[in-house]
Amino acid sequence: MSKLAVVLLSGGMDSAVTAAIAKEQGYDIACLHLNYGQRTQERELKQFNKLCDEFGAVSRLVTDVRFLSQIGGSSLTDEKIEITDADLDSEEIPTSYVPFRNANILAIATSWAEVIGAEALFIGAVYEDSSGYPDTRREFFEAFEQVIANGTKPSTQIKIETPIIDMNKDEIIRKGQELNVPFSETWSCYRNNDVACGKCDSCGLRLRAFDRVGMEDPIGYV
Amino acid sequence: MSKLAVVLLSGGMDSAVTAAIAKEQGYDIACLHLNYGQRTQERELKQFNKLCDEFGAVSRLVTDVRFLSQIGGSSLTDEKIEITDADLDSEEIPTSYVPFRNANILAIATSWAEVIGAEALFIGAVYEDSSGYPDTRREFFEAFEQVIANGTKPSTQIKIETPIIDMNKDEIIRKGQELNVPFSETWSCYRNNDVACGKCDSCGLRLRAFDRVGMEDPIGYV
Repeated sequence: MSKLAVVLLSGGMDSAVTAAIAKEQGYDIACLHLNYGQRTQERELKQFNKLCDEFGAVSRLVTDVRFLSQIGGSSLTDEKIEITDADLDSEEIPTSYVPFRNANILAIATSWAEVIGAEALFIGAVYEDSSGYPDTRREFFEAFEQVIANGTKPSTQIKIETPIIDMNKDEIIRKGQELNVPFSETWSCYRNNDVACGKCDSCGLRLRAFDRVGMEDPIGYV
Repeated sequence: MSKLAVVLLSGGMDSAVTAAIAKEQGYDIACLHLNYGQRTQERELKQFNKLCDEFGAVSRLVTDVRFLSQIGGSSLTDEKIEITDADLDSEEIPTSYVPFRNANILAIATSWAEVIGAEALFIGAVYEDSSGYPDTRREFFEAFEQVIANGTKPSTQIKIETPIIDMNKDEIIRKGQELNVPFSETWSCYRNNDVACGKCDSCGLRLRAFDRVGMEDPIGYV
């Protein structure tokens, strides 16, 4: 009998590589996508569906978590806060931080995993390139596994897999190349839905990594 | 300067008593209510707003977490699963269990608390009367506090308060009487929006407790 994993698939590069790793490890994958009112929601959803097709996802779920936008406090969801240009050497927590976002995401993923009988959650969190988000640290995920163990039915066993947490973007791209991840179908820009801006934190990290690896990024930029 | 707490306020008796305890402890309260597609959503929201008025809440937030209904697996949110009549001595996890619901609720509450600067989350979880829900146990809340410590900004300090976790329903009612909680403005029934059914798990527990305490429940029943 095949084993099943829930994969958080935003439509970005990191989660696409994470999905490919889950498949490489022999899991059937059920893909979860969250609309949280981010500016690039439309484009990310489109890429989510294309990636599900490419990966042969056995199940897909798109949920609305607009309450994160309602709660605000982040430039990704609050139109009144400016998205700052990339400053890759800054120690500050960037304005694109959505408070406690990964805990919300993992809680939803766990509920779904318990219902469909998945035994693992794959999340493409990356510590080094995370710009200091506190909920991308290994300790956070270990603590959340304890919450799952304590807060689900005794028969439920769900582990959290963060296969790229210690990789840098260069290594993620190389791993994706190895697993034939279709990077042309991924979306990273925080600002635009049509053509990537090339200037936000997320574009900045992506472009620098493709440059270092010596590959051309298959998506276009403004 | 006054201290601020987020209180989970469903509109039921337990959360109403919990809100009164937070006020008794000197907190200003910001009340959070979740619509998760439960059958009695309309009535619970109405009672939430009445209770916020009664308690003088400094802030209120109503969010839609319908994804719990979309994920399903519970009779509270899935119309296809029957709500069983009360069997108060059963060891089984009842069909009204929403998988990992409290983790989802606490994740939202933490996001909001971090944005508004609240230092505590009050949740009216009750272990004894919880019919075996795994996410109402003390170990679960302790584990979640670790997640908050690891997953929020270093400057954020949020504790979880579960002041009625070890009370039984009789004690909760007595505590509520002492604090002048308006029980007439609370709603417990899982089935109906107009007149409480008196037969579901939740009505069963409530009625038995009022009977034991020797008080008349101020709301009417079918």
